[in-house]
Amino acid sequence: MAVFTEVSDEALVAFIAQYDIGEILSAKGIAEGVENSNYLLRTKEDSFILTLYENRVDPTDLPFFLTLKEHLAAKGIGCPVPIRARDGEVLHELSNRPAAIFTFLPGMWPRRIQPYHCGELGQALARMHLAGNNFILRRANNLSVQSWRPLLNRSADRADEVQQGLAENLEMELAVLELNWPDTLPSGVIHADLFPDNVFFRGPELTGLIDFYFACNDMFAYDIAICMNAWCFERDGSFNVTKAKSLLIAYRMVRVLSDDELAALPVLARGAAVRFMLTRLYDWLYTPAGALVVKKDPLEFWAQLRFHQRVTGPKDYGLA
Amino acid sequence: MAVFTEVSDEALVAFIAQYDIGEILSAKGIAEGVENSNYLLRTKEDSFILTLYENRVDPTDLPFFLTLKEHLAAKGIGCPVPIRARDGEVLHELSNRPAAIFTFLPGMWPRRIQPYHCGELGQALARMHLAGNNFILRRANNLSVQSWRPLLNRSADRADEVQQGLAENLEMELAVLELNWPDTLPSGVIHADLFPDNVFFRGPELTGLIDFYFACNDMFAYDIAICMNAWCFERDGSFNVTKAKSLLIAYRMVRVLSDDELAALPVLARGAAVRFMLTRLYDWLYTPAGALVVKKDPLEFWAQLRFHQRVTGPKDYGLA
Repeated sequence: MAVFTEVSDEALVAFIAQYDIGEILSAKGIAEGVENSNYLLRTKEDSFILTLYENRVDPTDLPFFLTLKEHLAAKGIGCPVPIRARDGEVLHELSNRPAAIFTFLPGMWPRRIQPYHCGELGQALARMHLAGNNFILRRANNLSVQSWRPLLNRSADRADEVQQGLAENLEMELAVLELNWPDTLPSGVIHADLFPDNVFFRGPELTGLIDFYFACNDMFAYDIAICMNAWCFERDGSFNVTKAKSLLIAYRMVRVLSDDELAALPVLARGAAVRFMLTRLYDWLYTPAGALVVKKDPLEFWAQLRFHQRVTGPKDYGLA
Repeated sequence: MAVFTEVSDEALVAFIAQYDIGEILSAKGIAEGVENSNYLLRTKEDSFILTLYENRVDPTDLPFFLTLKEHLAAKGIGCPVPIRARDGEVLHELSNRPAAIFTFLPGMWPRRIQPYHCGELGQALARMHLAGNNFILRRANNLSVQSWRPLLNRSADRADEVQQGLAENLEMELAVLELNWPDTLPSGVIHADLFPDNVFFRGPELTGLIDFYFACNDMFAYDIAICMNAWCFERDGSFNVTKAKSLLIAYRMVRVLSDDELAALPVLARGAAVRFMLTRLYDWLYTPAGALVVKKDPLEFWAQLRFHQRVTGPKDYGLA
């Protein structure tokens, strides 16, 4: 939950006046998101989201993120679309931060995942992968396999505070991943952070995807692996094969999954578990106690890693 | 900033179905308020506020707060009005907490106070005081003078962590206040917490008041004193007499202030400073480090107390 930057009413009114979105009626800080400050705006015309980009987002990445959302929306993918101000630009400054206004995406993220959610997700993910095909900007995945060892090194000397032997176990896993990480699989724009709180539903139907601030160019199957971890494990750490099957089958109805991609899923899913474990581990150890952010348990991904280490083939993910 | 209770989407949909407010499109946790959990709801029909009452609110007080808002709104005071469900009730249970849905009050609270804000406030405060006249429920002010000594005792042994000599200085001030606290001034329903973040404006006009969860029966002039402290001091602790004058003159245009009330303002304002200093002091010392609440500096009220101790008459508040 996060509103890192307080915005004065005068500054906000002046900011909004740059846009043709009507007179502002209210602005409420939203208690979601950990990277940026978000406000829900109501104007006489409609509702909008105002985002102020905090330090964790590299400003040089903003054109990629903003243009990507425009591109995907134009291809029919539900997502917040940046509004252009009268000067034609989407980025302006507010309270000394880059800021943008987005269309409001209706829907709620699912707190209790059902298999039908995973089916909707699989379909939307595949559609997004196809829609990104001819997107011209590029952004490297700076949180992929090559970043994990430096990330572990930053936390290693305190990792055992979280779990005895954690650093050593992660070292061993990293050695396997570095050796076996695929590099010839189909790639394109991936979301790279499609956890349930970034996917909105209205009743049983998916309305759209939000929070593209980790989007980058990488293997499509890695995006699927991230989703499997985020959507198909129960709270007790057990894998729900029905959910995985729903996700994968729905995905394949939209985009063909090659045999190579299927065969790589276990190692990609192990990598996905490690990637989130490492960033959470660092945040867990180094987020100041007073920060207005909920620290998330890095060990949530431990059971996922263990599961994927034992997978022997696509049938373990529900595929015949 | 506060969303203490996470609500599942299924529970929310079932909750909303008790009301005639249309299908729910979205629910966003609001990063404001420190007592309750608040969500901004959008339905097909309109926007609403959903409030879940957390432990700090005594459930037996809820009928007073909720009925008061209905009463005031019926008298033309802008404030959130509880929506009755189909069963005719305003309170229902959600995630094991009492919960209610309110109309959405447009407007934003002023981050930088100008004298015209204080004028609008004075008028609205007086109108609220008159509108509460024939309200039938009663609620004692459990944070008035008789509560301050017990409150100080709970923090006294650690108060010097905040400022050397703080406990002793507060002891001396309490002795003065207990001796001189008025008890024959005009009384009725007061808001008792009308800080700027509880008063909404649209441009220069006040649209309404929110957060009545300290409202009670007490002296009207005490409510004025709370507002003077909350609205008429600058960040450096200096008193802005122009703002106070705007507040008091606007108030008097709506409701007559007796000479006794005017004469009591300094002691009431000293008491108001002490009351907020004491609750903040306690929260400062005893709020757990991980709590998702911004701790507010108790010493913000120290300069206010010092100022009012030296006031010699209404002219120091800008009145001739």
